[in-house]
This record gives sequence, structure tokens and C-alpha cells, in this order.
Amino acid sequence: MAKAKKSTKKKQPVILITNDDGVTAPGIRALVESVKGLGKIIVVAPDKPQSGMGHAITIGHPLRLQKVSVFDGVETYACSGTPVDCVKLAVDKVLKGKPDICLSGINHGANHSINVIYSGTMSAALEASIESIPSIGFSLLDLSIEADFTAAKKYARILVEHVLGSKSLDKHLCLNVNIPKGEEGIIKGIRICRQAYAKYEEEFDGRKDPHGRQYFWLTGAFVNFDKGKDTDVWALKNNYVSVVPVQFDLTHYALKKKLETNWKF
Amino acid sequence: MAKAKKSTKKKQPVILITNDDGVTAPGIRALVESVKGLGKIIVVAPDKPQSGMGHAITIGHPLRLQKVSVFDGVETYACSGTPVDCVKLAVDKVLKGKPDICLSGINHGANHSINVIYSGTMSAALEASIESIPSIGFSLLDLSIEADFTAAKKYARILVEHVLGSKSLDKHLCLNVNIPKGEEGIIKGIRICRQAYAKYEEEFDGRKDPHGRQYFWLTGAFVNFDKGKDTDVWALKNNYVSVVPVQFDLTHYALKKKLETNWKF
Repeated sequence: MAKAKKSTKKKQPVILITNDDGVTAPGIRALVESVKGLGKIIVVAPDKPQSGMGHAITIGHPLRLQKVSVFDGVETYACSGTPVDCVKLAVDKVLKGKPDICLSGINHGANHSINVIYSGTMSAALEASIESIPSIGFSLLDLSIEADFTAAKKYARILVEHVLGSKSLDKHLCLNVNIPKGEEGIIKGIRICRQAYAKYEEEFDGRKDPHGRQYFWLTGAFVNFDKGKDTDVWALKNNYVSVVPVQFDLTHYALKKKLETNWKF
Repeated sequence: MAKAKKSTKKKQPVILITNDDGVTAPGIRALVESVKGLGKIIVVAPDKPQSGMGHAITIGHPLRLQKVSVFDGVETYACSGTPVDCVKLAVDKVLKGKPDICLSGINHGANHSINVIYSGTMSAALEASIESIPSIGFSLLDLSIEADFTAAKKYARILVEHVLGSKSLDKHLCLNVNIPKGEEGIIKGIRICRQAYAKYEEEFDGRKDPHGRQYFWLTGAFVNFDKGKDTDVWALKNNYVSVVPVQFDLTHYALKKKLETNWKF
């Protein structure tokens, strides 16, 4: 298996790539192509779709890691686990050290607003950031397997170059990048945003199986409650690429202060 | 199925209980017992262990929901999905409305510091909070199936009473509560804390199967990098119950400001 930094003579950056749609998804191919020439690329991605896996890890059963041939000239491994498992295994067993950057995606479908929390794509990026590896998760607002990644590739490269050039900004730097659907020409630029307050209004689709027993499909409508013009949802609606810096400290500091004042035990 | 608020004559609060260790785990029984008499309890919990599932949701296949008999006099459902699925299904299909509070746990094992992000227990609580349902996730620092939940039950009840009595503090109130292992007498009290900066140093245990093919078990050592005395790890080490208010807005606002200043596209 590759030995990350040690085997790279010209000190070119090591770029770890993963995703949640699986190693054979068109989106990860687009991401590999978009950063060609920026460093030594290693791919460790799930061997099957892992959408909606959030920050799940595999603890109840063992993981498999298989060398596969998917991208021309790029060392690639398919992992039986979740996107977060892929990052952990890549660092410990494939690279045997930290890459210079970890990229995840390009996801087929949006990961703006509350989606960040359900997204395997973003959880992989966040896992890297926990490991002090700068990371970016990319998502295109197009679920189709035939999605056009031209614009996404262009902006992915611009952002990777920015992060590689400014690593000192934050050792846990992690960006949630969403790219509008459509032709490259419609995109007006890049906006640094906050996560919009939005959620899904669930309505499970209840059905009966051939034996008369009920089962449910998760469905739901996306509802944006956030009127702010500094949000990712606003930026995307107005044809900007949205960039939300994210963190893994979930402490609600404002509420902490309130509780300290109001609660006496 | 139960009709949440409509069917409760005395306007007693509706208490939804879930967990990630599964509906038959001793920890959820302890939680049910601890809040008896505080409201109408409904349990919707996974039909099997779902530890480490984080905020995973089930989108690729349908979900089952089965009425089961586990707790005396408590309407209980086992769900084939993740802890987050349980909350979504409970609200949409079991309660057909929002409970007054959602409780998750009591988890067999710690969910302090970075564990919050991998934890099915806490993801269920966070999901409720996204739905504007006040929520608390409880975890006991004892992985054993024979763990003593006496102290955990006592403090769970105290905290549930506090939240039910002060719902106006924040409509997305979500608490990550950890309880030290050991006798009730050793606990010094309750501390409001922030999430410690700590992580796992992974070391996958690589083995060969009987056919000579490699597989990996996720293992790792917990390392606390945080010297603060206001963290959950500090509180627990000093025999306090730790209470960390958590949120689902992952935006890193300080980094957002830095990027806005430093990055020009």
C-alpha cells in the first residue's frame, strides 16, 4: 500500500479522495479529474452507495479493503464500510499517515443546510478535519447519474488550490461546498456562507407488502425557514457556489450560558 | 397507534423514548423507569443494536415498525432502522405529532467529547431538536450489560424535570448528558460543560480470514487534548454528571470570518 508523504519525492501534496456514492459513481471520477496535477491522488471510497450514512462507523463487524482498478494511474481502494470508515482506514492502513488534504464527493445531490448532518460526503470530510487534515466536501445540486459535472469540476479545482495555498488558516479547516445545477455560464461566483436553518418535513410513505404487513419509505419535503441572504440556500438559489466552513464542536455556547444562569441544582 | 397530545386528558407531557442499543437493552429500561409518573411514555427504539450509527438515516430500503411488549404498561415499538429513523417515524406515524420531550438512552458507554458525533444516542436527540422537540441524550460511562444504572436514573429524572419546567429556554434545546460510572454516592453534582477536544487514535486490527484474505476491526485509544476545566471530560473525571448543550448548526463562524477576509475569488 502507498506510503503517503515518504514516497513522494518532489513533496507534492498527497490528496486523499473519498465519497458516499461509491467508488464507481461518476461524481468521484469528476473529482479525481478536477484535481489532476495538483498532487499525488489516492482514492479510498465505499464499495457501494452509502448516502445518508451521516457519521456512522462500523464497529459490530470487520471491514474489507480491496485494491481496485477504476481510475487510470490512480491508486484506488474500495472499502466495505461507511465514508467515515474510509477516511480512518486510509489514514491508518493505506497512507499510514496524514494526507495534505482530504476531498469528498462530488456528491450527486445537495448537501446544503441541514443535509450536512445526514451526509456521508460531509461526514467523511469532517472526520478528516477531526484528524487535523484540511478537508472539503463537494456536492452538486443534481441527483442524476447523468449529471453534468463541468462547472463543479472547475470550482472544485479553484477551492482545492485555495486550501492547499492557505493551510495555516485553521488546522481543522473543513468546507461544505455546494455547486448549483446547470451550465457553467450561469454561475456568478463563490460565496462564503453560513448553514441555513432548514429541514425536511417528513411524510413516510406507508405501504403493504404481499403478505399484508406494513412498511415505510422515508420521503419528505425540504422547507427553508431561513430568510437570511448569508446562507448556503440563498447563495445556491442565486447561482453562487456556496462554501460553509464547518466544525465538529457541537457545543451550543449561547445556550450553555443561559443554562448556567438559569439552572441551579 | 397513539395519538400524542390529543388523547392525554390531563395534559400530561408526552415523553418519547428511544436509544441506540436496541429496545431490549437494560439502559432503555432504566430510562423508562426513571421518568415514570412524569408523563405519558411512548417508546420507539431500534430492534437491534445501532451503536456508532451517528446521524444515519435509511433511504435505500423500507422501514418496519412493530408493536412489541417490553415494558409493563408502556406503548412500545421496535423499528428496523437507525435511532434517527426511530425519531422521524415516531413523530410522523406513531405520535402523529410532536412529543413534549424526546429522551434517548441510557447508553451503555460514554458519549462525551467527540463521541457525540458518532453516537446514535445523541443523533436521535439532535434529530428531535431539529424538529423543535426539546431533547436529552443520556449515557453511562459503563459499557457492561450488567451496568448499575441507579445513579444514572436519579440524575436523568432530575434533568428531565428541569427541561420540562423550562421549555422556553430554547426551542431546539438538546442536552448531551453523561453520568460517571460507579456508586451513586461518589457523584458530586451536575456541571454544565462544553464538548472537550478529544479524539480516537485509530489502530485497525488487521487479521486474515480462513481463506487468507485480510479484514480489519476498528479499534483505537481515546486521547483528550483538552486541558480545560469547563469540559465534559474534566467534569466526568471529577465525578460530576456532565451536561453539554448541543446544536445542529455546524457553521464555524470564526473561520467564516477569516475566510471572508483572506480569500478573494
